[in-house]
Amino acid sequence: SSAPAPIIATLFPGDGVGPEIAESVKQVFQAAEVPIEWEEHYVGDQIDPRTQSFLTWESLESVRRNRVGLKGPMATPVGKGHRSLNLTLRKELNLYANVRPCYSLPGYKTRYDNVNLITIRENTEGEYSGLEHQVVRGVVESLKIITRQASLRVAEYAFHYAKTHGRERVSAIHKANIMQKTDGLFLKCCREVAEKYPEITYEEVVIDNCCMMLVKNPALFDVLVMPNLYGDIISDLCAGLVGGLGLTPSCNIGEAGIALAEAVHGSAPDIAGKNLANPTALLLSAVTMLRHLELYDKAERIQDAILNTIAEGKYRTADLGGSSSTTDFTKAICGHL
Amino acid sequence: SSAPAPIIATLFPGDGVGPEIAESVKQVFQAAEVPIEWEEHYVGDQIDPRTQSFLTWESLESVRRNRVGLKGPMATPVGKGHRSLNLTLRKELNLYANVRPCYSLPGYKTRYDNVNLITIRENTEGEYSGLEHQVVRGVVESLKIITRQASLRVAEYAFHYAKTHGRERVSAIHKANIMQKTDGLFLKCCREVAEKYPEITYEEVVIDNCCMMLVKNPALFDVLVMPNLYGDIISDLCAGLVGGLGLTPSCNIGEAGIALAEAVHGSAPDIAGKNLANPTALLLSAVTMLRHLELYDKAERIQDAILNTIAEGKYRTADLGGSSSTTDFTKAICGHL
Ligand SMILES: CC(C)[C@H](C(=O)O)[C@@H](O)C(=O)O
Ligand SMILES: CC(C)[C@H](C(=O)O)[C@@H](O)C(=O)O
Repeated sequence: SSAPAPIIATLFPGDGVGPEIAESVKQVFQAAEVPIEWEEHYVGDQIDPRTQSFLTWESLESVRRNRVGLKGPMATPVGKGHRSLNLTLRKELNLYANVRPCYSLPGYKTRYDNVNLITIRENTEGEYSGLEHQVVRGVVESLKIITRQASLRVAEYAFHYAKTHGRERVSAIHKANIMQKTDGLFLKCCREVAEKYPEITYEEVVIDNCCMMLVKNPALFDVLVMPNLYGDIISDLCAGLVGGLGLTPSCNIGEAGIALAEAVHGSAPDIAGKNLANPTALLLSAVTMLRHLELYDKAERIQDAILNTIAEGKYRTADLGGSSSTTDFTKAICGHL
Repeated sequence: SSAPAPIIATLFPGDGVGPEIAESVKQVFQAAEVPIEWEEHYVGDQIDPRTQSFLTWESLESVRRNRVGLKGPMATPVGKGHRSLNLTLRKELNLYANVRPCYSLPGYKTRYDNVNLITIRENTEGEYSGLEHQVVRGVVESLKIITRQASLRVAEYAFHYAKTHGRERVSAIHKANIMQKTDGLFLKCCREVAEKYPEITYEEVVIDNCCMMLVKNPALFDVLVMPNLYGDIISDLCAGLVGGLGLTPSCNIGEAGIALAEAVHGSAPDIAGKNLANPTALLLSAVTMLRHLELYDKAERIQDAILNTIAEGKYRTADLGGSSSTTDFTKAICGHL
């Protein structure tokens, strides 16, 4: 009998601690016998004119071809004449939704217990249009762009996600009392989609009030969907509730079924190469990738192994108050598989 | 010997629970022998063409003349053809800075202890420009406007506040990595002002990171200054850390030395007229007004009486888990004076 052909996935180990935490994912996947073969791509050392950034055209082609990838932290090189690496990926691959599951890790205490919510961020427009100019000296303006197409698309994704993941409620976050036209259009699109999902409760929450409710009682929320900047803010706030970006997964959804999972924390150059980094965010991101590939069994097994290792508390990296190396923590996870 | 002439201050009791909590302030001020005489103004029942809102021209003239006022919650009437009451006040009185002290109340437990920070929000421009339009069908835009004048003005206020209130650090909150021109100009202005205050530490924090840090460890911050929308979001987040808008004071600073203190919570029509409302936010706002008037002794005495009453825990309103009426809570405060 012949084994099924492996799935090919693009891997951007990234900069700083990226290669070490990517190595951790490779080892855990191997131990769990995940049928994935990695196609590795690094950020280039010069601007690729076809991408206007340090990302190579080949690496983007790789994601387009494989439709699935995993990305470590990337430090955008300093200097002019190129686009940020993250923004280039979002634009070039049309990564329209950024999905961040945010849940309390058993055994890792923060001020909040039982957080279990999903932020879904529109990832292509809004305040990130890049359209800005000086009107007169001392007066500048930025344009926030909201389109019906992008709003419907992310709303559709959010409701579909809620339905397929057993979630009960979708909250659209906005400031339509002030930005009546832009956020108003966003809400109108959410309402249209909501009508197609009568089994999902739909509500609208003003962003300032949402942030207050989140810090008082995050259990009030389930799935949150919102325009770009609000998503940027709220996803980080929610990560903070359960311990920060070192512990929270993220996955970007693009058109044509692309999924690019990523650790959204920084590249931590100060500890790079020292076998000290915590690979949890990248590992849990890799788990979201497995779910996207409908490899649910592998996803559950690996997630349980990660969470159990952290819960047990014997092997923890320094950021979680332990003294384990990246490799020992990784071995402990493999031992829990 | 003749008593000094009283200070005349405008009072907007506001809607819903407004009159009851305003009554509480009047009683506490009387018990503390604060030399203030109130000039009361209510929201009108028709649009005043001179203000384009339900606020009467006379009430605005009263604040302009007295230069100091206190405002309860106002429910903006539903319907077209008029401006929101809050936005009208900000525009007409040029209330350029919204200052919100945010501190843990002794004896009232939340997830956070020892919060003690000040948010200072630019209150006139940014995302609140009201400039929006449809570009083509399905594509809308809002303009965020940042000016050198308004940015310098609020930055100057923030550093001056820090210096005169014994604060050590000012953090400018921004998203200049994305909105390089608008938030970039805001930061440039903050830097210029920072140079004039070498004794105050100055730092810049990206808004998403700021929100994460705030929920992880609010003690990392001291005074925060920021453009309008970020201030709207972060001031509510911070209020949430210590219990919500029912407990946190707010004061708006305008040109020509105007100070309009206000309770920023809603008008709570469901409990209006039932002697159940918690007057703490309006009382503490009134205290910020006293400080603005340099009536420091009265301010301290009243603030201590409020905080001691809450700390003691015998008289608390329902929102704080007690069963006291507004009037009993108020009497308890007067008893602590
Ligand atoms: C680095 C920055 C441009 C980026 C963003 O604002 O989107 C980051 O905060 C994120 O959330 O991925
Ligand atoms: C009611 C609303 C317009 C207002 C604002 O956004 O400024 C409120 O949230 C506030 O903070 O005073």
